[in-house]
Amino acid sequence: MLEKLKEEVYRANMELQEKGLIIYTWGNVSGIDREKKLIVIKPSGLDYDNMKADDMVVVDFDGKVVEGKYKPSSDTSTHIELYKKYPEIGGVVHTHSTWAVAFAQAGMDIPAFGTTHADYFFGDILCTRELSEAEITNDYELNTGKVIIETIGDKDPMEVPAIVVKNHGPFTWGKTAAESVYNAVVLEKVAEMAYKTMTLNSEVKPVSQFLLNKHYYRKHGANAYYGQSSEDK
Amino acid sequence: MLEKLKEEVYRANMELQEKGLIIYTWGNVSGIDREKKLIVIKPSGLDYDNMKADDMVVVDFDGKVVEGKYKPSSDTSTHIELYKKYPEIGGVVHTHSTWAVAFAQAGMDIPAFGTTHADYFFGDILCTRELSEAEITNDYELNTGKVIIETIGDKDPMEVPAIVVKNHGPFTWGKTAAESVYNAVVLEKVAEMAYKTMTLNSEVKPVSQFLLNKHYYRKHGANAYYGQSSEDK
Amino acid sequence: MLEKLKEEVYRANMELQEKGLIIYTWGNVSGIDREKKLIVIKPSGLDYDNMKADDMVVVDFDGKVVEGKYKPSSDTSTHIELYKKYPEIGGVVHTHSTWAVAFAQAGMDIPAFGTTHADYFFGDILCTRELSEAEITNDYELNTGKVIIETIGDKDPMEVPAIVVKNHGPFTWGKTAAESVYNAVVLEKVAEMAYKTMTLNSEVKPVSQFLLNKHYYRKHGANAYYGQSSEDK
Amino acid sequence: MLEKLKEEVYRANMELQEKGLIIYTWGNVSGIDREKKLIVIKPSGLDYDNMKADDMVVVDFDGKVVEGKYKPSSDTSTHIELYKKYPEIGGVVHTHSTWAVAFAQAGMDIPAFGTTHADYFFGDILCTRELSEAEITNDYELNTGKVIIETIGDKDPMEVPAIVVKNHGPFTWGKTAAESVYNAVVLEKVAEMAYKTMTLNSEVKPVSQFLLNKHYYRKHGANAYYGQSSEDK
Repeated sequence: MLEKLKEEVYRANMELQEKGLIIYTWGNVSGIDREKKLIVIKPSGLDYDNMKADDMVVVDFDGKVVEGKYKPSSDTSTHIELYKKYPEIGGVVHTHSTWAVAFAQAGMDIPAFGTTHADYFFGDILCTRELSEAEITNDYELNTGKVIIETIGDKDPMEVPAIVVKNHGPFTWGKTAAESVYNAVVLEKVAEMAYKTMTLNSEVKPVSQFLLNKHYYRKHGANAYYGQSSEDK
Repeated sequence: MLEKLKEEVYRANMELQEKGLIIYTWGNVSGIDREKKLIVIKPSGLDYDNMKADDMVVVDFDGKVVEGKYKPSSDTSTHIELYKKYPEIGGVVHTHSTWAVAFAQAGMDIPAFGTTHADYFFGDILCTRELSEAEITNDYELNTGKVIIETIGDKDPMEVPAIVVKNHGPFTWGKTAAESVYNAVVLEKVAEMAYKTMTLNSEVKPVSQFLLNKHYYRKHGANAYYGQSSEDK
Repeated sequence: MLEKLKEEVYRANMELQEKGLIIYTWGNVSGIDREKKLIVIKPSGLDYDNMKADDMVVVDFDGKVVEGKYKPSSDTSTHIELYKKYPEIGGVVHTHSTWAVAFAQAGMDIPAFGTTHADYFFGDILCTRELSEAEITNDYELNTGKVIIETIGDKDPMEVPAIVVKNHGPFTWGKTAAESVYNAVVLEKVAEMAYKTMTLNSEVKPVSQFLLNKHYYRKHGANAYYGQSSEDK
Repeated sequence: MLEKLKEEVYRANMELQEKGLIIYTWGNVSGIDREKKLIVIKPSGLDYDNMKADDMVVVDFDGKVVEGKYKPSSDTSTHIELYKKYPEIGGVVHTHSTWAVAFAQAGMDIPAFGTTHADYFFGDILCTRELSEAEITNDYELNTGKVIIETIGDKDPMEVPAIVVKNHGPFTWGKTAAESVYNAVVLEKVAEMAYKTMTLNSEVKPVSQFLLNKHYYRKHGANAYYGQSSEDK
């Protein structure tokens, strides 16, 4: 079942490794079939080298395995929580990419310092609060999803499709699994640039709202003029 | 038309990726035919993996597409502005290379700290001022060109063929598209060295004018003695 | 003799190079046959490029060469000291990997700043004290082992299977040679993350004990739920 | 003439590129035939990609080209000055490797912070003083050699076979061209480690003299016990 989505999710997981975002099994990508309300996700702790599309696990919104010979990623509950809350999300990614983790561990937002950031993220990339002892002890992965949602608050999750969870690491999302991986790559690059900017100039301020508007809307929305329109690509 | 220049510009664009200066579609190179007053530039947002020389777009000095099935780079107006102002320029490059972006985001010039810098850039690599709200809202890419020109001021653009645009990133130029890419690679390396120098010693001063003279003129001008003369190469 | 262990130790040594932890001959891996009380270790200063499984050296608990045409690693006494003290150890690794060395040279523990750390190391990775002049002058490598043991003190060596020796570099261990190399790779990544975290936020605090518990026990012990159970892998 | 030395010097130059120490033409290696008092050196500004052993240039102690169709490296006078002063030197290397350049540009010695350093360099790697205007204007490359020699002073050049020239970059040497390249690679790694150490702990002190002695003499001199003796290698 869901062979096409499995292939997409598998490819997206492999892409994480090819782009240098992960070592060993330190990441996971999922994708969703909204009609069937089924999620396809990487198996827990499986080596990327021997992984096949067919190894992807299918789970429902309760986290129950519907198909697959492996256990799903231990972070599955976090993914589900995001899919349930945000119907516009089609893919979710979690990694331990180094620059983004540095901000997560430092407990700091990644400020929008330039156009590279503004091209993809319409504002600062937020760092969540720390989870409480109770939230960690019981339903930890579920609560990780809840604290992400709490941090996003009233905002549109598609405007800044990335977050860093305090003391943990980045989660990104997008319309598809592939787009979520793309956002994870951009997040890591933007975090690297922000680190270098801040260590070079400790007084630096985020970009102006109008530069943020300009670059974000150059690529997104009805008046976007970056790239090719879909017909002539 | 302009098949040879298209090939050069295509090769120069691919070189950006091979040298590790860009990921995805984050850069663009153009070249100019001065006699025909036509510019060849990368299409907007096109994947490097499937790009061919024939995909390059030909535009005139008004930015009108003269040939090509794709839309030109969204930064085309910036390139044109530089070509119009500086007749000695034959190629222009824009990237989001990380070390140079750090200086752009920090709003800092890249000081000439050593001979690596002096071999290619006869003085500090300047950071432009911030664009105003009006400059960003209307004709943003054109105004990006104008602020570069304003920052260069009375100086010879070929003496320091690189600049970082505040909150944005580097632009470089040269006699050809290939030379502009070469300058983009050197800029990134020099920015990396400057970052490490400044974070190691916050009191460091730029090099003396005579060391700058020595290294620059060892490679440039009538008395250059670095490299092979063109006959025996 | 011990052909299988030699192959394992050889593979583990090559892995150090493939993972980018070492250049030239700057590292060594050993493994032990607990029944025969024999240790298989890399020859001293031998090029990785031409090394074969058969070049591995077999030594006993006194460091005497039992088999092998080469001299064993100059750090052999350190390895033996660890094997003698900790019966649960099946492999030992020493490298000069850059981020871990930075902490060793700075004389600082690597604090547990996040879940990447907590997934593998149940607490801070300690830095030993400096060796005294007497300890360096005589039986230096043996004393390096002793100071590691002194630093571990009453703790379970398998809970934090890594240490940095002051002014020197990292040692890691594990149930097998391969697991020790895995721990060396994780240590280097965790040290990189800690460096970036601390230079970004000098006030940062280690993670809470309950987050440490949660992540460590998610992967280790009777209630672990990360990865596949061994049957279905 | 000197075909074997040309091959060695050619190989050593290519090694600079393979080890990632240089981009473009930013480095040079030479070797010497002490009996014939002839030096073989890389041509100036020649691409590494198309270089052949036969392109190496042979010069005498006055810098006169004895054989070769190209001009020798513009840094040839620096190499010659070192060969003339130190009869034990068989090879010289100059690069613009980034970490070592950072110390050169910062005008700082590279302190011996650990055993990686002590294994190869018996003490701090010194940074020269700045050259005066007169020294730069006339016979610049010769004077670069002189200031290196002035900085080494009474010390044995083989004990610390590396130096960084203020505002410029590293020079290393050794018994052969290949050993000089090896030392250039180690210098870069040691500079990287020192940078990270110092930015992590600004109060850090160099290693004790006895640790320096121990590690240096473990690898060098009559009582060395690292590596294989030459017979059994």
